[in-house]
Amino acid sequence: MAVSSHAETKFSALLKEQASYEEAIGLMAWDMRTKAPKKGVDGRSEVLGVLSAKVHEIQTSEEIKTLIDELKGRASSSKMERAVEEAEEAYLRTVKIPAEEYREYVTLQSQAESIWAEAKDNNDFALFQPYLEKLVDYKRRFAEYWGYEDHKYDALLHSYEPGMTVRILDEVFPKVRKALTGLLSDIQASDNKPDPAVLEGHFPKDKQAAFSEEMLRRMGYDFDAGRLDETIHPFAIGLNQNDVRVTTKYDEQDFRTAVFGTIHEGGHALYEQNISKDLAFTPLADGTSMGIHESQSLFWENFIARSESFWKNHYSLFQTYAPDSFKDLPFHDFYKAVNEVKPSFIRIEADELTYCLHIMVRYELEKALIGGEIEVRDLPKLWNEKMEEYLGIIPSSDSEGVLQDIHWSGGDFGYFPSYALGYMYAAQINAAMRKEIDVDACMENGDFEQIRKWLTANIHKYGKLKKPLEIIQDVTGEGLNPDHLITYVTEKYQNIYQLSR
Amino acid sequence: MAVSSHAETKFSALLKEQASYEEAIGLMAWDMRTKAPKKGVDGRSEVLGVLSAKVHEIQTSEEIKTLIDELKGRASSSKMERAVEEAEEAYLRTVKIPAEEYREYVTLQSQAESIWAEAKDNNDFALFQPYLEKLVDYKRRFAEYWGYEDHKYDALLHSYEPGMTVRILDEVFPKVRKALTGLLSDIQASDNKPDPAVLEGHFPKDKQAAFSEEMLRRMGYDFDAGRLDETIHPFAIGLNQNDVRVTTKYDEQDFRTAVFGTIHEGGHALYEQNISKDLAFTPLADGTSMGIHESQSLFWENFIARSESFWKNHYSLFQTYAPDSFKDLPFHDFYKAVNEVKPSFIRIEADELTYCLHIMVRYELEKALIGGEIEVRDLPKLWNEKMEEYLGIIPSSDSEGVLQDIHWSGGDFGYFPSYALGYMYAAQINAAMRKEIDVDACMENGDFEQIRKWLTANIHKYGKLKKPLEIIQDVTGEGLNPDHLITYVTEKYQNIYQLSR
Repeated sequence: MAVSSHAETKFSALLKEQASYEEAIGLMAWDMRTKAPKKGVDGRSEVLGVLSAKVHEIQTSEEIKTLIDELKGRASSSKMERAVEEAEEAYLRTVKIPAEEYREYVTLQSQAESIWAEAKDNNDFALFQPYLEKLVDYKRRFAEYWGYEDHKYDALLHSYEPGMTVRILDEVFPKVRKALTGLLSDIQASDNKPDPAVLEGHFPKDKQAAFSEEMLRRMGYDFDAGRLDETIHPFAIGLNQNDVRVTTKYDEQDFRTAVFGTIHEGGHALYEQNISKDLAFTPLADGTSMGIHESQSLFWENFIARSESFWKNHYSLFQTYAPDSFKDLPFHDFYKAVNEVKPSFIRIEADELTYCLHIMVRYELEKALIGGEIEVRDLPKLWNEKMEEYLGIIPSSDSEGVLQDIHWSGGDFGYFPSYALGYMYAAQINAAMRKEIDVDACMENGDFEQIRKWLTANIHKYGKLKKPLEIIQDVTGEGLNPDHLITYVTEKYQNIYQLSR
Repeated sequence: MAVSSHAETKFSALLKEQASYEEAIGLMAWDMRTKAPKKGVDGRSEVLGVLSAKVHEIQTSEEIKTLIDELKGRASSSKMERAVEEAEEAYLRTVKIPAEEYREYVTLQSQAESIWAEAKDNNDFALFQPYLEKLVDYKRRFAEYWGYEDHKYDALLHSYEPGMTVRILDEVFPKVRKALTGLLSDIQASDNKPDPAVLEGHFPKDKQAAFSEEMLRRMGYDFDAGRLDETIHPFAIGLNQNDVRVTTKYDEQDFRTAVFGTIHEGGHALYEQNISKDLAFTPLADGTSMGIHESQSLFWENFIARSESFWKNHYSLFQTYAPDSFKDLPFHDFYKAVNEVKPSFIRIEADELTYCLHIMVRYELEKALIGGEIEVRDLPKLWNEKMEEYLGIIPSSDSEGVLQDIHWSGGDFGYFPSYALGYMYAAQINAAMRKEIDVDACMENGDFEQIRKWLTANIHKYGKLKKPLEIIQDVTGEGLNPDHLITYVTEKYQNIYQLSR
C-alpha cells in the first residue's frame, strides 16, 4: 500500500530537525568535557536544557504521532520503516509517563547525582539512600507504564538492549559465572603469575599521545573525520558520521590508561564513522544498542590489543616510544603483565576476566530491586555478600563498594548488563570473523584493514537498521551464546598462567 | 501603564530560546574554524542551517509580533523596553523583505562567496561581476524596503551602525582624510624612517603563544571564561559572557601577526566578557554596534599596545621570549618599527594611519554604487583611481585591489565604515579616559586593571542597552568627533618620524 511521499518528506524534515539539535547537543557535551572554560558551564547547561526540550517536543508532538500512524507499515523503504519504528518507540516511551511525573523525575536525577558524589566522597550510603529509594520507585512505576511480559526489569533492559530479557540473562550469566569463577580460582592457585610491576615506568605524555594516535591510525580511524583530545573521563562521541571524536587521559606512570583506553574508545568511534552515510539525520545513524557498541570497543581493546599476535608486531614499536622504561623488558613478561588477572573492587579498573563478575553483582541486585524482592536499604550488605561470592573479596567501604558507580544516581537501571553482553557479543564476533579471516596473521602483519572492513560490512554500516540480536544472528548464525567467551578466556588464560587443561 | 507580567515571561522565554540557538551556532562556528575535522563540515553546515532557520522563525513569528505590540512602551524596565525595541527591529528588518526574495538572496550569497574566492585567486573580476551586480540590485531593493530619510545607503549603514548616516560620514571622512593624507606626505618625505627589517627574526610559535597569553592575562582577559586557540583568519567570539574565545595565528618570522592580532581580538573579548550578566539570554547581551566593538579592539591594539609607554614596561619582557632575535635590538628602533607607516595595497595589513584611507576608498565606492551613481562594471577602474588619490599607489591587479575583501561577496555593503568609526571612537574614548586616569602611568606600571574597569563601567557593561552614539555622547560629552583621532596620529607620528610641527 503506497503512502504519500508528502508524509515521508514531512517526517524526514522533523527527524532532521531533531538530529540537528542532537548534533548541537553532542558538540556542546564534547566541548564541556574537553575545551570549555569552567565559568561558561552554567550558561551552556541552560542552552542544553533548551535544545533537549526541543528534542522532547518533537518526539512527543501530535505532528509526529500523526505521521507515524500514517506511515507505519506503509513506508516506501525498509530504512523509512525502521525510522518510523524508532520514532514510535521514542514517542511511546515518553508519552506513557505522565508529564508531571517525568518532570519530577528529571529534577530528582540531577539532585541525586550530586548527592551521590557527596555520599561517595564521604563513604555515606545513608545520605544517598532516600534519593536512591525514590529513583527506584520511579523506575518501578515507569516499568509498569512501559509494560513487559515476564519481568518488570525487562522493561528497563529494553531501553539499552532491545530484545534482551531476564529470562535470557538468567540462563546465560550463571553459565559464564561458573566458568569464570572456576578459571579464576585456577589462576589464583597458579605459580606462574605475571609481574605487573614491570609495566610501571615513566612514559611521557606526549609520547603516549603519539603512540595512541598511531594505534588509532592503524585501526583505520579517520582523523579527517575525527580528533583525539584529553579529558578526565574518556569517551567517544559521534556528532555525525564524518565527525566522530575520541578522548583519552594520560597517566605518565601507567601507559595502560591511555593506550588501552584510546583503543577502546577507538572501537566505538570506528562503529560511528562507518555507519552508512545514507542514514544521516535519522535516528538510525547510531549504534544499534549499548551492548553492540560495547562489543566494538571491547573487540579492539581485548581481542586485538591484548592479544599475543598484536604485540608480536607492535611491541618493538611501543618500546621506541618509551625506551628508557621498556627497552630491556622481554616481550613475554610485557604481554603477560598486560593480561594480569586479579580480583579488585573497582569495576572500571577490572581485568577482562573479572569484569563480567562485577557486572553480575550489579545485575542480580538491580533485578531484585526493581522486582521488589529487596529494598535499597539492603544494598550495602548484599553488595558485599555478592562480591565475596563472585570475586572472593569484600570491599572495606561503601565508597569502593555499592557507591562506586554513577549509573544508579541517574536512574540508569538496566544499563549494566550491556557491558557483559558486549563481552559475549565480542567473543561471538571474534569467532565468526576467524572463520573468514586469518585475524592473527592480520595482527602480526599490522594489517587491520581487513578486520575493520569486515566489521563495517557486518555490523557498522547498518547503524540501527538491524536490531542487536538480529546483528548477532546474521553475523554468527546463532543468538546470544556465552560459549565463545568462555572458550576464549579459558584458552587465553590457561596459556598465560600455564594452567593444566 | 502596566502590562501583564505574563507577556513579559512569554517574551523572555522566546528570547532565551533564540539566544540558545545563537549560542549553539556560535560554538559550531568556533569549532569549524578551530577544531572540527574537515570531513564533518558538510553535516555541520546543515545543522547550522536548521538552527539559523529556527532563529529566523522566532524573529518573524506571529507570536513575537503580538508580544512586541503588547509590550511596546509598556515594559516594566528599561532593559525590557530595549529588548522589545531590538526584537521589533529584527522583526521589521526581516518581514519587510518578501520571503521568496530573501531566500533567493541567501542562495546568491553562498554562490557569490565561492565565485569571489575563485575570481580573487585568478585575478578575474569579470567572473565575479554578474554576481556582484545581482547582490547590489538586491541591496538597493532591500534599502527601499527598509526605508531611509536622506540616502539609500543609510538603510544599509543602519544594520551595522544604528544612527550613522551618509550626512555624518560625508562631513567627517573628508576632514580625517585631509589630515591623514597631509601627514602621510610629511612622513614619506621624512629622513627619519624606521627600519621594519629589525623586526624580522625567528620567534618560535610556542613562545609567541606564551607571550600572547601573558598579554591577554595582563589586559584582564579571564581565562576561566575563555580560551586562546589557533586559526587561519583570527576572530573573537562571545558564546555567553562567561565563555568568550579568542583565536590568533602565528608567523614564526613575524611576531606582529600574533601579538597585535591577539591583543586586538582580546579587546573585542574584554567587551563581551564584561557585558552585564543580567542581560544574558537577551539580544542585549552583545556589543552595541560594529563600530563600538571595533573601538575596543583598536583601543587595545593601537592606543595601548603600539604606544611608547606600553613598550617601556613590556619590551624587556618581550625580549626574554625571543632573545635570539631581539636581545640586541635597541628599544627605540623596536618601538619605531612597530609603528612604521607605509601605503600598501591590502587593507588588513595596513598600519594605523593609512587604514582609514583604505576604508574611505570602499565607502565612496559603495555609497555611489547603492545610490546608483556608478555601476559594478566601473569598480576596478574607480578603485584604482581612489587608491591613487588617497594612498598614492595603484594596485597591479584586481586581486590586490577591488577583489581583496570578502565583504561584498556576502552582500555586506555598509559594513566598512564601522572600521574607520572604530578608530575615531577609540580616539575619543582614549581622550576621555585620559581626563580621569593616568593612562601612561598605568601602561608603564603594567597596571591595566584601572583601564579595563573604566572601559567596563563606561562601555562594556551596557551591551546593547545604550545605542552607539549614546555611548559616545555619555562617555565623551560629544557626538562623533574626528579631531581626537587627528590629534592622536599627528602627535604620535610627528614624534616617531621627527616631523617639524
